[in-house]
Amino acid sequence: MQQDPNKKTVLDPFGTSIIADYERLYKEFGIEPFKPFLSKVPNPSLYMRRGVVFGHRDFKRILNAMKKHEEFAVLSGIKPSGEFHLGTLMTAKEIIYFQQRGAQTFYCIADIESYEDNKVPFEKSEKIAVDNVADLLALGLDPKHAYIYRQSKESHVKDLAIVFGRAATLATMKAIYGERNIGLYLAALIQAGDILLPQLEEFGGPKPTVIPVGVDQDPHIRFTRDLAQIFYKKYGFILPSSTYHKLMKGLDGSPKMSKRLMNYFTLHDKPEVIAQRISNAFTGGRATIKEQRELGGVPEICPVYEVCMFHFVEDDEEIIKVYNDCKTGKLLCGEHKKQTIDIVTKFIKEHQRKKKQFIDKAKEILNVE
Amino acid sequence: MQQDPNKKTVLDPFGTSIIADYERLYKEFGIEPFKPFLSKVPNPSLYMRRGVVFGHRDFKRILNAMKKHEEFAVLSGIKPSGEFHLGTLMTAKEIIYFQQRGAQTFYCIADIESYEDNKVPFEKSEKIAVDNVADLLALGLDPKHAYIYRQSKESHVKDLAIVFGRAATLATMKAIYGERNIGLYLAALIQAGDILLPQLEEFGGPKPTVIPVGVDQDPHIRFTRDLAQIFYKKYGFILPSSTYHKLMKGLDGSPKMSKRLMNYFTLHDKPEVIAQRISNAFTGGRATIKEQRELGGVPEICPVYEVCMFHFVEDDEEIIKVYNDCKTGKLLCGEHKKQTIDIVTKFIKEHQRKKKQFIDKAKEILNVE
Repeated sequence: MQQDPNKKTVLDPFGTSIIADYERLYKEFGIEPFKPFLSKVPNPSLYMRRGVVFGHRDFKRILNAMKKHEEFAVLSGIKPSGEFHLGTLMTAKEIIYFQQRGAQTFYCIADIESYEDNKVPFEKSEKIAVDNVADLLALGLDPKHAYIYRQSKESHVKDLAIVFGRAATLATMKAIYGERNIGLYLAALIQAGDILLPQLEEFGGPKPTVIPVGVDQDPHIRFTRDLAQIFYKKYGFILPSSTYHKLMKGLDGSPKMSKRLMNYFTLHDKPEVIAQRISNAFTGGRATIKEQRELGGVPEICPVYEVCMFHFVEDDEEIIKVYNDCKTGKLLCGEHKKQTIDIVTKFIKEHQRKKKQFIDKAKEILNVE
Repeated sequence: MQQDPNKKTVLDPFGTSIIADYERLYKEFGIEPFKPFLSKVPNPSLYMRRGVVFGHRDFKRILNAMKKHEEFAVLSGIKPSGEFHLGTLMTAKEIIYFQQRGAQTFYCIADIESYEDNKVPFEKSEKIAVDNVADLLALGLDPKHAYIYRQSKESHVKDLAIVFGRAATLATMKAIYGERNIGLYLAALIQAGDILLPQLEEFGGPKPTVIPVGVDQDPHIRFTRDLAQIFYKKYGFILPSSTYHKLMKGLDGSPKMSKRLMNYFTLHDKPEVIAQRISNAFTGGRATIKEQRELGGVPEICPVYEVCMFHFVEDDEEIIKVYNDCKTGKLLCGEHKKQTIDIVTKFIKEHQRKKKQFIDKAKEILNVE
């Protein structure tokens, strides 16, 4: 539903990146709204506080484990087909959040998926993976208390895929993934193996596990939960829990970040390039300065605001002020872009400096020369 | 085409188990007739001499390697879902034949296939595999010069399946295997991995490889040859060669041995049971003794004759005599059954005695407690 941009009352500073059809996700697919949990989570993450994490499955199990200091695990990962961008950054931060709250931590480099889905040869994804892991460490993941692995080198996930294959009907696979080559279906089974890996005896047996992902990944989660149920007798799996974050818009205002449109930046880009991209970004501004002073901007549709709200303005008061100043016409787009470029490039420079120091460690973790 | 049973001239003592449509196999599927090679093979096997091996793909490559004493490999295997029967016995003997002619020898226990296709749990197929390997050793395979492995424990074949998956279209899989669960398609890719395993660097690199199989397995061979071509650049694969043997009839005269019909025997059955099965077998005999003395029997349709001709009468002169004596009405079914029971039970007793001594060795090879 289009908000009325003329309404100057503060609506919802965290209401950007609206998924058209939340109600449908909740009703048809059984994703539960996250909001009712918020007050119960001790030290909720920025994403939780701001409604970026908006849905979940069986999160109560994780909350209980956190509260009672019982064993639980977090797993997510990256498809090593390119540099860390703001999407993969979200997952990384979510994992780090749960790691810092005591989760047994798993980070999967989905190199089989990048091979089957994107035709990235393993020799190439190996190099990308080193880079991705260095990013992850620079962001603060503690490698001493995490299992970081490549699918292609992890025999347990491959063996789980073989076990699960017997229960994966062609109809299910086609419904989720469309008509694809067998390799892609195999990659999906291996991903189910990833999600259930923390529950194998070799990793301490069945336990609550949370999988933080973008909401577009829910079909994988549902598929894996079905498999967990089918193979309960053999493994004693607890159905994996999940949290869902919203997907970011492109800097051009289009609904998705896209390699083809080059409407985003990565943590690897030069600060000048990032500054340029933000400068050129679409905003929620008005046609003229006069109009904007009078009517205020529309942060709800503004990707620059979103970049700040999702990632770079950590203080809630501060982001609410940005929102209000935009809505009341006090803060114009040019100025806000300048502020944003300052914050982002400062972060990027610092991140790139740290990351360099983690390359060797990343190679060691992945056992790469 | 029905032969005229009244014709008393000797037709073809090795013409039993007629596949209705050889010409179609040759013409449509590109299987080549084996017969033209026969005179060129030094010491051809019983199956080759008697036309049981009737077709091949690229066998010339193997013949050249044998003649020039160049490196080549043989691979086939067993699906560990039950005891050795006369079908698996054929493949085993073919492998042993090529091993004795200098082939690098591979024997695959297709436990992933028996899991995906027959729902045999791995704990169960492990036990069956020990038994199968003991049979194989008792038949004369030299384990010191063979690689005997289970698919589930051989990471190379699983990794090859992952690599091949990208090129396996759903259309191809459905054409070969029908609408099946993904696990079955995965098993097919793993089998392609088996067939090309001998050509990996770890096993000495690309080389001519012969896969002796029943003609019903040709779709796997064609599929694997396609994959070998597609991945030539990465691995340098030489297209695998194959030989095709005829399939045995059931003892009840039906075209196939079938667990459901119990129309065959295994090497594990008690001699009394086997004697009983042969006694009760369908034959090519006439309605009355008088008629049979006059017209002769029809060995071409007789499964008891086939058991002797395929397996248990090793001397060519001797089996030709049986054929002629039957055709001329000299040898009646009762007597021939008695002779056959004697030969078969003698073999079985001796085989079972030898097999017992190989159980420990089989466990050692498969690394089973």
